This record gives sequence, C-alpha cells and structure tokens, in this order.
Amino acid sequence: MTRVGWIGTGVMGRSMCGHLLDAGHEATVYTRTKERAAPLLERGAAWASSPVEVAAASEVVFTIVGFPTDVREVVLGPDGVLAGAREGSVLVDMTTSEPSLAVDIHEAAAARGVAALDAPVSGGDVGARAGTLSIMIGGEAATVERVRPLLEAMGKTIVHQGGPGAGQHTKMVNQILIATGMIGVCEALLYAHRAGLDPATVLESVAGGAAGSWSLTNYGPRMLSGDFAPGFMVDHFVKDMGIALAEARRLRLSLPGLALAEQLYVALQAQGGGRRGTHALVLALASLSGIDWRH
Amino acid sequence: MTRVGWIGTGVMGRSMCGHLLDAGHEATVYTRTKERAAPLLERGAAWASSPVEVAAASEVVFTIVGFPTDVREVVLGPDGVLAGAREGSVLVDMTTSEPSLAVDIHEAAAARGVAALDAPVSGGDVGARAGTLSIMIGGEAATVERVRPLLEAMGKTIVHQGGPGAGQHTKMVNQILIATGMIGVCEALLYAHRAGLDPATVLESVAGGAAGSWSLTNYGPRMLSGDFAPGFMVDHFVKDMGIALAEARRLRLSLPGLALAEQLYVALQAQGGGRRGTHALVLALASLSGIDWRH
Repeated sequence: MTRVGWIGTGVMGRSMCGHLLDAGHEATVYTRTKERAAPLLERGAAWASSPVEVAAASEVVFTIVGFPTDVREVVLGPDGVLAGAREGSVLVDMTTSEPSLAVDIHEAAAARGVAALDAPVSGGDVGARAGTLSIMIGGEAATVERVRPLLEAMGKTIVHQGGPGAGQHTKMVNQILIATGMIGVCEALLYAHRAGLDPATVLESVAGGAAGSWSLTNYGPRMLSGDFAPGFMVDHFVKDMGIALAEARRLRLSLPGLALAEQLYVALQAQGGGRRGTHALVLALASLSGIDWRH
Repeated sequence: MTRVGWIGTGVMGRSMCGHLLDAGHEATVYTRTKERAAPLLERGAAWASSPVEVAAASEVVFTIVGFPTDVREVVLGPDGVLAGAREGSVLVDMTTSEPSLAVDIHEAAAARGVAALDAPVSGGDVGARAGTLSIMIGGEAATVERVRPLLEAMGKTIVHQGGPGAGQHTKMVNQILIATGMIGVCEALLYAHRAGLDPATVLESVAGGAAGSWSLTNYGPRMLSGDFAPGFMVDHFVKDMGIALAEARRLRLSLPGLALAEQLYVALQAQGGGRRGTHALVLALASLSGIDWRH
C-alpha cells in the first residue's frame, strides 16, 4: 500500500486515480473544481485544499492537469507540490507538457531530494477507464522501477524512454503521428464523398491494408455518422501541436506536415470546433471546399 | 477452367497470373519485355506477340501495366485488347489508373459487346505473392460476379465499389491515406532522432495505440535500418498522387495534405529517389533539416 497524492481529476485523471484506489492504495486528492473529485472522495479518497497539502500527505504524487502553465503552478508555484513534498518522495507528472519544463521540474525536485518523472499517456478516455494506457516515461531508471507497480495499475505499455523530458518528447512523437495521419483520413473520406462513392463501402476496401490506421478504423465511422464528441479535445490537441512545433524549432527541425495540421486545427477552432473531438478536423477540411459535411 | 489473357508481368502481375495458373486456368500472356514473362511461360502459359492476340485467345483479359498512357495503348490502341476482344468477353484493368479513362474504356468496350471492369489492387508485392490483395472494383455488378472466382484466386478483400471508375476512385482514397500518413511517420521518426530518443524504443510506446498504422509498423523499422528497397516505387506513387490531385481538382476538392505529400515526393525524385520504396520519403524530409539519415 502506497500513500499516493493525485492532482487533476478530469476525464483521464479520475479513471486513473480510481485504478489506484481499486488496487488498495490510499489517495489524497486535489483538483481546481472540487465537485469533479466527488466520485473519488465517495470511494474513500481524502480531500486536500491545495497541492502543497497533497504533497505533505503522500509518498508519490501524480499530476495530470491541462496546460504547461497549470503544471508549472501546481508543481513549482508557492502552494505547489514541491513546496510540500517530503525528501525521498516521488513526483510523476502525467500531463502532456513541455519537455523543457519536465527538465526544470526534475532539477527543482532534485534540489529538494525529490525524484521526478515525466510520464504522459496515450490511449484516451477509453484507455484510462480500461487501464490500458501507454505510459511514456522520462527520468531516472531507479525512480521508474520504484513507481512501476503504481503505473501498472493504470497502463499496459509502460516504457522508460530516457532522461528527464524523454517522456514528453515521446508523447510529441505520438501526437505528430496522429495529427498528420488525421489529415489523411479526412481528405480520403472527403474524396470518397465528392467522387460519389459510398464511404462505408470504401472503408471495407482500404481499412485492412497498407492504408489502414487506428484513426481510420476508430474515427472514420464517427466522422461518417457525424459524431464529433471528444475522445480527445481539439483545444488540447492544438496545445500539444504547439509544444511539438516549438520543440522542433528549437531542435532545428522542419516539420511541414505537422505545421499544416496545426493550421488546419486552428481553423477548426476559429470555426467553433475547439471543444469537439480531434476527428472533427473533417469539418474544417470540408469547409475549404464548401462541403456541408453534416448534410 | 477459364481461358484468361494476361498483359503486364511486373512484380505484381507475375504473381497474380501465377495464382490463376495454380487454380487450373489457361493463360495467354503478353508483356513488353518477353523475358519478364519467362517464369509464367515455363509454367505453361502461352505467349502472344500483342495485346490484340491475347484478346483473340481469351474469355477474360486482365491488364496490369505502368501508367495510364500504357493502359490506353494496350486497351484502346490499334493493336490493343479491344481491337481483338470477342463479343461477350470481359476486360479487367487492374492498373492503378485514371477514373475517367476507366469510364472511356467501359464505353468503348460496351460498344463492341465487351464488359469492362476497373479493378486496381492494394497490398503490394507481398499481397500479390500471398494472394491476399484488396481488389477495388468499378463496373456492373453482373460482370463482377462473372469474374469473382478468378479474382478470389488473387485477392482476399474483393469489393464492388460502384459503376465504371469507382474502383479507381477507391484506389485514390487508398493512396491519399498512405501519402499523408507517410509524412506523419517520417516526421515522427525525425523528431525522435533529433530529440535524442531511441526511435526503436519510441515505437514500443506509440505503435500499438491511437498513433498506430500499417505504415508505422511496417515501414518504421525499415526507415530506421536504412532499407529503402521497394515495396512500392516512388515513381509509381507520384503517378498515383498526380491522378488523385487532378481528379480532386476536377471535383472541386481542396486536399492540402495530399498536395504537400506530392511535393515532398517530387523532391525525393529530384534527389534521385524515384526508384526507391515509398518509405524513402524520410530521406527527403531529413534533407530539409540537413539530417544525413543514413548516418
């Protein structure tokens, strides 16, 4: 049994912390909007009124919040985790955030005798509920081994990718793949539509072969039925692509496909789609050619 | 037993015609370079010295050649299939070619009492050898049923997509997916490389989830090992993307992702990569940032 702290109880965090409770761990929870923590509190988690209090009560603190600014505040801020973390404790940030911030946190934590990992996830709300997330980890190997049993309650694919920031970099790789692949799925369905094909029949021909992808199989049918509920929200995805593009610029790496994807998603936001799922990209691409997709 | 004609014995055609021989059909073969037909002739296929002679000897003629101009010559030219095809016979063009040419051929064939299908394939050399191709068919349903037993010797996924040209349009959907998805795979691996990650370890984290695709699983490792032998050749892929872009323009459909992919592949040709496999796109994207990929 480990005394864990949990900060951030959105769609992802709530399921993930729930798996730790199921596994018999004690949890102290903080989140900005207390009612979102209610399902965890009902299951026996304790409430803390700030990140610093969470840290004071915990051996391992997990954070999964929205944006890098949120990470900075809940970890490095005056009421943040590091202000209260005990020597020898571990901080695991599972937010998708900046690799350079992960390095900053690792250094600030080390200065207080706290070990830090960056451990963003992929697999979405479905993977969080099922405990099948992919967890991509940056930090020291010994720290990874210390918290591995906890991570195994939340994820299926748990891989140590390298030093501080390597988890975040790996998540950027994941997002680059999804972003550019999504353009292909949208354009393919739009072509099928304009060519007068039946898109569902087209999927029978193309989804099982060299053109196949998780996005095509899982999002293609939702695009066709006009179901744009998130899954993963456009506003968060634009944040991720912004991080990836900034990192790529810093690394002197030109990524024209990612840049195009980001601009198309910005257009989708401009058209009011920020809170839809990422597969709503088809609406922005349809609008380019004057296609009313939800005909 | 059907007397089939076969025109075009490249990597794909040779395997596909071989399956028809294995199934007990008689084949008459023509191809531009006779020695490429030798493996089929050794297995009992008859040689004809022109497409018109192939047609005269056959109930069902299959063509799978290089470019739309080749299709036009082999089918509609003075020594072409239609000049010799018997009334009641069937022509199946399996080349990836122009939807509008498929419509022209269907009409010219109908005027001579010949039924025509456009039936391009995906699955590559591996699928051709294994008889697991996806065959995407345009034309009349009754014609599809007549030749279905022959197609089943070559493919696993055999779907009638609609009237004349619908097979070619479906293949374009397939190529749009592959083209844009390949940008994502290349950019993701380049990011991993520049960020100092171990790309093979990164694949462990990302290939099994929402970022996963056939291209990532099958081409990612070949990109990493520097194996750029085709699979499917860049020069042919550029032809396909050109057809898709021209059709999209005609359909008043803007496809910015496909347009970017096509330009990057043109750059790869300019750098001498036309006869490599399509996954060599990583070389062109690497060159943008001054990365010598085969380090």
